[in-house]
Amino acid sequence: MEPSILSPSEAREMIREGSWKGPTAGMANGFVQGNLAVVPRELAFDFLVFCQRNPKPCPVLDVTDPGSFAPLLTAPGADLRKDLPKYHIYKDGVLSEVTTDITNAWTQDMVGFLLGCSFTFEQALLENNIPVRHIEENRNVPMYRTSIECVPAGNFHGPMVVSMRPMKQADAIRAVQVTSRFPNVHGAPVHIGDPGKIGIKDLISPDFGESVTIHRDEVPVFWACGVTPQAVAMQQKPDIMITHAPGHMFITDIKNESTAIL
Amino acid sequence: MEPSILSPSEAREMIREGSWKGPTAGMANGFVQGNLAVVPRELAFDFLVFCQRNPKPCPVLDVTDPGSFAPLLTAPGADLRKDLPKYHIYKDGVLSEVTTDITNAWTQDMVGFLLGCSFTFEQALLENNIPVRHIEENRNVPMYRTSIECVPAGNFHGPMVVSMRPMKQADAIRAVQVTSRFPNVHGAPVHIGDPGKIGIKDLISPDFGESVTIHRDEVPVFWACGVTPQAVAMQQKPDIMITHAPGHMFITDIKNESTAIL
Repeated sequence: MEPSILSPSEAREMIREGSWKGPTAGMANGFVQGNLAVVPRELAFDFLVFCQRNPKPCPVLDVTDPGSFAPLLTAPGADLRKDLPKYHIYKDGVLSEVTTDITNAWTQDMVGFLLGCSFTFEQALLENNIPVRHIEENRNVPMYRTSIECVPAGNFHGPMVVSMRPMKQADAIRAVQVTSRFPNVHGAPVHIGDPGKIGIKDLISPDFGESVTIHRDEVPVFWACGVTPQAVAMQQKPDIMITHAPGHMFITDIKNESTAIL
Repeated sequence: MEPSILSPSEAREMIREGSWKGPTAGMANGFVQGNLAVVPRELAFDFLVFCQRNPKPCPVLDVTDPGSFAPLLTAPGADLRKDLPKYHIYKDGVLSEVTTDITNAWTQDMVGFLLGCSFTFEQALLENNIPVRHIEENRNVPMYRTSIECVPAGNFHGPMVVSMRPMKQADAIRAVQVTSRFPNVHGAPVHIGDPGKIGIKDLISPDFGESVTIHRDEVPVFWACGVTPQAVAMQQKPDIMITHAPGHMFITDIKNESTAIL
């Protein structure tokens, strides 16, 4: 069966059964996918306040009750311990295990966070005839650490990470309009133009992901990126923290369009 | 000095010094006012998750660090213990004190929440020539308990409380557009028309506030109301919880228009 036409629950079942182990881009087309972050209860309040204070990089889609692994708002029947194709388990801030099932690591005091991901607004850009370069070039989106400091919360603090998509000036204006409708998946850009203004030295050398071609008549457009909260949390070297593996997201029951504000 | 033209910090200073003790409606015109809820740290995570799950009745503008009384995002120089004209202190869910200063009650483990209030979107309605009846009739807005259950979080659960503004059908459509731009202050209506559909028996007898005139050619329009989180939290009879006194809000440094999403 074509992965793009699966329903979200069919896609999650394939993943849970181990018959899909790859990235989730393009699966269950039209439905919101989420970044996963799992932290112990003792860190969860500060992490949630951090997200509240930095809604552009950290748009919260769902928070589980402590110990529960069901995302109540976005896919009540799902199991966050098994329904993503690949997880990263970090101990003391160091990647210690890559796995397809985190049932054993999910202790009673774990809290799961689902954060909005850019797949949703990229779909909206494409539907508005705005080309998305890293999709055209079949690469991972280029991401950069910036000089924009997030608003700290508790021990969590650090720079905002942004993703970059090059486009024509006229498209950049339309892109502001289109993505403003989706505040739950990073919303409007945080910067357009000179990368130096936000502390980025070289667009050719992203801190995460891969570089993409920028044509002469194009301007770089920067969006707050969901890598930010993970990077910030990891600096605290929590005893344990679990995330999705890059590109291996959680597929929700929420349609992209239904997260739009207008 | 005319209260409407005070800057937010001037207004807060008048309040802090005790030279303004009344409701804040109309003060520092054009700036966002917030509902205050103060709960001990042990309840704060569940309360914040409750707000995240119910963003229409509980739009979070700001959360203080535990023990801090400065609203970092919305008025960093302010003091939540003194800068509101009147507070309600509840013990075990019962109103035990009405006061103008909560310095003594604000222990090290207190967390302050500022939640969006409808003053902002009422201003936007008026600017769009949509009449706001309770302002015309100089009454408090009518509020009703509904049959719409909030999504629970921890021990917090209960029905959504809504406010009602009657208007012509054409104005109701415009009102959806206008208030959709302000998701941080309750956003779009939750219901238009037949009150029975959301469990309201009699518009003449609101559960809170005062009733207003509804003309024959008007339809009632219902918005999620900031009374909801207080009502829900109070059911838990926390040892201590502090709120603003009705109408005696916190005045932020944030301009109404700058909270709009588009």
